[in-house]
Amino acid sequence: MEILEKRIRQDGELLPGNVLKVNSFLNHQIDPDLMFAIGQEFGKLFTGEKITKILTCEASGIAPALTTGLIFHVPVVFARKSKPSTLNKECYETEVFSYTKQVTNKINVDKKFLSKDDSVLIIDDFLANGEAVKGLINIAKKANSKVAGVGIVIEKTFQGGSKWIVDNGYHLESLARIANFDNNTVHFVGEE
Amino acid sequence: MEILEKRIRQDGELLPGNVLKVNSFLNHQIDPDLMFAIGQEFGKLFTGEKITKILTCEASGIAPALTTGLIFHVPVVFARKSKPSTLNKECYETEVFSYTKQVTNKINVDKKFLSKDDSVLIIDDFLANGEAVKGLINIAKKANSKVAGVGIVIEKTFQGGSKWIVDNGYHLESLARIANFDNNTVHFVGEE
Repeated sequence: MEILEKRIRQDGELLPGNVLKVNSFLNHQIDPDLMFAIGQEFGKLFTGEKITKILTCEASGIAPALTTGLIFHVPVVFARKSKPSTLNKECYETEVFSYTKQVTNKINVDKKFLSKDDSVLIIDDFLANGEAVKGLINIAKKANSKVAGVGIVIEKTFQGGSKWIVDNGYHLESLARIANFDNNTVHFVGEE
Repeated sequence: MEILEKRIRQDGELLPGNVLKVNSFLNHQIDPDLMFAIGQEFGKLFTGEKITKILTCEASGIAPALTTGLIFHVPVVFARKSKPSTLNKECYETEVFSYTKQVTNKINVDKKFLSKDDSVLIIDDFLANGEAVKGLINIAKKANSKVAGVGIVIEKTFQGGSKWIVDNGYHLESLARIANFDNNTVHFVGEE
């Protein structure tokens, strides 16, 4: 997605440890018009899939999930980060390991909002090791929902998450695919 | 806003302690089309104000803030909940007391995203005691930004937050104003 790649080059900041900071337009400050274009793009890419719900994780997944929901006209469900003490029988809960923070967190979704009749499109802002997406797939599985696909705004292709998703047979679409950060520069897959 | 009041009557759940649960369309599962209509309504209500940024708090403020940003075509900034250990000179930080949970949390916004040249519209999903809005106003003040107004999706008029906002001279607009929950029923302001 050209306007997204252009924006990453223009406003993204590279930090040590292969961290790409895009908080000026994606996950702290949000450009709503870019976000709407992102929803439209996911609309095109998953147009053949049956989708009854969009599933994401708070907080930074909510914006791209919502604009995708605006295109498909289906409810958007965001998994909440559980408090350590919370044990709730009314929720589907799973663990998500964060490589960045080296901690395991839990996320949950109220059982009311996912069922065996659902076919969910998982949307998230970033894909690196894929732990968040694995967690969301786990929650969909616990609800016996079908996973119609996985839509990612920015994919770091070299950290294993995308390979796992594709190897496990899921339809993955990423709008910007980063090949590497050689010479402290963002290089996208397929560029000269 | 009629479709919102109708939806609250239809899908809202009343819990003990004046808690109105609307997580089937507002703050866990989101109805994107209703959320877009909410953004359009804020667009009408604040049409005379100069607005350069939308300011909200993660996670449930993000959806209505984003659809409002889609109408005004200005960036949406969401305050992040700070970790207790985090002390960051690059952020505007303030405390927010939660009456529901009886704890004080901190929220922050990166200094890059608010300045004296900004005129911010604060958007949030709920207004009760007003602590979250006071926190967001505090952050705007620390950045020397102007507060152009406060837009609330659901206001509980009887818990003091709205009185504080109006008494302090801010332009407040709420899309659904709840008068009381007498007889375990939602009563809106002005209804027969």
